[in-house]
Amino acid sequence: MKIRALVTLSVAGLLILFSALAYRAPSWVEAAEKTNTIVDARGNLRVPTNYRTTYQFLGTWAIAADKGVQGSKQIHDVYSSPGAIAAYRKDGHFPDGTVLVKEVHETATQPMTTGTVSHADKLVGWFVMVKASKNLHPDNKWWGDGWAWSWFDAGKPLKTTSTDFKKDCLSCHEPARSTDLVYIQGYPPLRRGQ
Amino acid sequence: MKIRALVTLSVAGLLILFSALAYRAPSWVEAAEKTNTIVDARGNLRVPTNYRTTYQFLGTWAIAADKGVQGSKQIHDVYSSPGAIAAYRKDGHFPDGTVLVKEVHETATQPMTTGTVSHADKLVGWFVMVKASKNLHPDNKWWGDGWAWSWFDAGKPLKTTSTDFKKDCLSCHEPARSTDLVYIQGYPPLRRGQ
Repeated sequence: MKIRALVTLSVAGLLILFSALAYRAPSWVEAAEKTNTIVDARGNLRVPTNYRTTYQFLGTWAIAADKGVQGSKQIHDVYSSPGAIAAYRKDGHFPDGTVLVKEVHETATQPMTTGTVSHADKLVGWFVMVKASKNLHPDNKWWGDGWAWSWFDAGKPLKTTSTDFKKDCLSCHEPARSTDLVYIQGYPPLRRGQ
Repeated sequence: MKIRALVTLSVAGLLILFSALAYRAPSWVEAAEKTNTIVDARGNLRVPTNYRTTYQFLGTWAIAADKGVQGSKQIHDVYSSPGAIAAYRKDGHFPDGTVLVKEVHETATQPMTTGTVSHADKLVGWFVMVKASKNLHPDNKWWGDGWAWSWFDAGKPLKTTSTDFKKDCLSCHEPARSTDLVYIQGYPPLRRGQ
């Protein structure tokens, strides 16, 4: 009987080990962990690694070519960190820690079966925003107005070229202040029931 | 001693239950399961549910407005089922079961701080392709040339309006035959090292 109890205990031990190995944290925990790697201790941002396969797509901005030229000169595709879409659909807000990545490409434009069509060609860079309703780094010039902000040139995802969000970022985003400085009209996944 | 063995067995039983609950299938299993729900027993397709939060974004096609008009009249955003990007980066092919969803929107175009900019407005519909190197439904007119194909009008994600892929789909995709009938040049995530 002692042997049977020992065997059973061993099985139980193995099951505990298996449970620990098999258990995967829920996606919001993963999302929070990922956010932490995007902001360093001093509040400096970086472009998230693998956002193309781990983030969720929000929408596209097609920047028209100059007058008289057909097509788009740039395409901006915007991704959000996992869980942000579901949270926004619930209460109309991006939760703290939400990361938005706007990927900016120059385009190639060609005649296709659907007409004159532009698609992403050469990467120009990334614009990254991290939601922070409380300013955790008031001395850092990339933090303010409920977000942390930084632009990164292509090939340099670790070091921003922005110097002050008020000068470099806010002038473009000011018109969207009523929607927390984000142009949500271009993001169909945020609409409820879609 | 008998009681102790019983207690230990009960603990083991609970742990088995916990393991079963806590264990989550790896993502490729989830992907395969999801693919199965998109093709029914007779080979008919449907638009995948929740592709906006569970699929990975591939790229954008901005269809230029008519000559003399600035901006884009349509934006096509393309998603792929989980795992397809990683597989394609490895060997340059979409594995069987890969689902591609092209979301077609009419646009709204407005002056913004970045210029004249178009974004997705009214949904027109979806074009769905499912990779099938072996034609599993040769009598089904939506199957052939290594894929299953169907167009769906907005609001009707369960019932295609396509009647024959050769007539309705292939004419537009024929120019991309050398890349398995998919226009990969618009999909930066498929490029290795990006």
